[in-house]
Amino acid sequence: MDEFARIRYWNEGRQSQLLLERQGVVLGIGDDAAVVGMPPDKDAGRLEWLLAVDTMVETVHFNDATMEPEDIGWKALAANISDIAAMGGVPRHALVSVSVPKAWEPARVRRLYDGLYACAERYGVAVIGGDTTSSPLHLVLAVTVTGTVEAGKAVRRAGAVPGDAVFATGAAGMAAAGLHALLAAAAGGSGGLAALGGGTGATPPLWPPPAAKGGMAALVQAHRRPAPSVRAARMLAARGTVTSLNDVSDGLASEAWEIAEASGVTIALRESDLPRSGSMTAYAHDCGVDPLEWILYGGEDYVLLGTMAAADAQAAKAELAEAGLPMYIIGEVEAVGPGVDLIRDLDHVQAGGRRGAGYSPVREKVAKRGYNHFGG
Amino acid sequence: MDEFARIRYWNEGRQSQLLLERQGVVLGIGDDAAVVGMPPDKDAGRLEWLLAVDTMVETVHFNDATMEPEDIGWKALAANISDIAAMGGVPRHALVSVSVPKAWEPARVRRLYDGLYACAERYGVAVIGGDTTSSPLHLVLAVTVTGTVEAGKAVRRAGAVPGDAVFATGAAGMAAAGLHALLAAAAGGSGGLAALGGGTGATPPLWPPPAAKGGMAALVQAHRRPAPSVRAARMLAARGTVTSLNDVSDGLASEAWEIAEASGVTIALRESDLPRSGSMTAYAHDCGVDPLEWILYGGEDYVLLGTMAAADAQAAKAELAEAGLPMYIIGEVEAVGPGVDLIRDLDHVQAGGRRGAGYSPVREKVAKRGYNHFGG
Repeated sequence: MDEFARIRYWNEGRQSQLLLERQGVVLGIGDDAAVVGMPPDKDAGRLEWLLAVDTMVETVHFNDATMEPEDIGWKALAANISDIAAMGGVPRHALVSVSVPKAWEPARVRRLYDGLYACAERYGVAVIGGDTTSSPLHLVLAVTVTGTVEAGKAVRRAGAVPGDAVFATGAAGMAAAGLHALLAAAAGGSGGLAALGGGTGATPPLWPPPAAKGGMAALVQAHRRPAPSVRAARMLAARGTVTSLNDVSDGLASEAWEIAEASGVTIALRESDLPRSGSMTAYAHDCGVDPLEWILYGGEDYVLLGTMAAADAQAAKAELAEAGLPMYIIGEVEAVGPGVDLIRDLDHVQAGGRRGAGYSPVREKVAKRGYNHFGG
Repeated sequence: MDEFARIRYWNEGRQSQLLLERQGVVLGIGDDAAVVGMPPDKDAGRLEWLLAVDTMVETVHFNDATMEPEDIGWKALAANISDIAAMGGVPRHALVSVSVPKAWEPARVRRLYDGLYACAERYGVAVIGGDTTSSPLHLVLAVTVTGTVEAGKAVRRAGAVPGDAVFATGAAGMAAAGLHALLAAAAGGSGGLAALGGGTGATPPLWPPPAAKGGMAALVQAHRRPAPSVRAARMLAARGTVTSLNDVSDGLASEAWEIAEASGVTIALRESDLPRSGSMTAYAHDCGVDPLEWILYGGEDYVLLGTMAAADAQAAKAELAEAGLPMYIIGEVEAVGPGVDLIRDLDHVQAGGRRGAGYSPVREKVAKRGYNHFGG
């Protein structure tokens, strides 16, 4: 199967004319470039374009043990859609560059596209172009997305102001736990694979872990099929009270630091208010890992971390709740900075402790680390 | 140097505020996504967006022997700009995904960005975002570009009609000759590297070749620093008589076949009218290679191949000539198809032949081949 046959086999007939038209696609895959229409005149002055690219590299972001081909396609697009959500925008189009080694025969790559197109369908994204090359050894998948946002309303990292509430649109740490479990299952302690494990340094446990078995599927799903918070981002951005927004790709700590540095503030997170998945906590305990390690430094959760006017936070949470979307108010923005602090709640760590005479929150600095492609 | 320090080291302070503003950049590198403004209201209904992505992979598209780091950066962006030119559009923005192995230390990658930004400056393209990841072994560079074109005026491959003239905006085959020379110089006949040589199968010659030395720089330049025909494309598209357009990335034959198939026509090329560089021809003879092999099947020339109303072809050529831009009328479009034919001129192959009693053009089928990432 030559290059052109492969492109057809992977892409042809994947998306409805309706979806393509809704996204203004004039010309999709198959010419030198794709053509997309501007929004209608009445919108044109009111919108701006968003553009982002995210890349997944075999052995760096995934391997045979951690991801099915469908998962790779899904996640590559989802990570990009998450970037659009993190600006408060609507994802529109995607272009897919895939570099394919011999070990990836056409049917295996098609499964990758199955996952990518499933994600595109879920978020209404039109796949309009790409590039297909060979690769000497490893599969590399670079996806570019476009989106739109109301002019002047893109939510940056730099807007947090003291007194704001800090919020998250979902639990962090589940993806790291899922990856840990996948690597443990596959390698039973191989250092090479464990090195991928989000930097926890923990020894992978026996598989399956004794207590957490029931919830493992959710953790693996979190790693393989992240679901970016597009709806939540749009509802939050529409309130006009959100002052900064970031998606959790490199870990809650790393993203909080980005907001803190861009805005010149300290992000103070309350341990007791951090959303934690029961399965993640149980699995962490089984592994002898502090769940906070995964929550703060795990990454790849693709939930949103943001700041907003404190006075509007409860109303925003109620609006999202009505739509069935979670929102957690997890801390506040302080004037000095940049910094990220964690207000520990000793009730959490002292068995049987109750708030009262013995209550003693302790404030700790949160390290500026997370997944970094070239070390810290 | 960590990931964020590298991104700053490679990108910071590269482009003027003027260039960024001219391209409507609201927010460039550094947040979750870039933000670009819509064109002003008066233009909005009159424009469409173009989007394309092109990827270069170490050992597939380049290696230490064929390209300096600066060349890789230049060419990755130039290949994309050429895709926008091939639609008749104006290039606007670029996003750069680079996956970096250990062997590529930060200073070496910075040189790659030097070349990329030089190309961006030359074509007025704003670099607005990207993604930086590690890579296990090979460097992979995927560049996405945007452009704009007057609404409804993007020049596709499918519009060629019988009677049209076929034209090219520059010589083909020089890039293939340059690559051949680079590989020959480096490897002196190594089969592994020769396999990259555009599929000619010719044995690399002794280096330096005896007769062609003087013009070698132009051939090497053609391979390393292609100069896409943006101005020519804009002038041609503005005439309203261009019916199809393609850029020569995989070879003149392959691009002609794409137009022929998309339009359902035969492209008849006249050998005697194909533009040939003297250096390329001389070097080919030194190597015992038929220059036609490189012209038709070499690829990576990034000139444009197109069709237009025959009645307007000479006027178009004159307009381009006035601007100092070459244009060659190299054939015509015929009704039956799809196919690509070459009208041989035996004067070219028979030594000392003159047109007269012995003149005998011969028509040959042009094979549907060129560079193909997964064989033909």
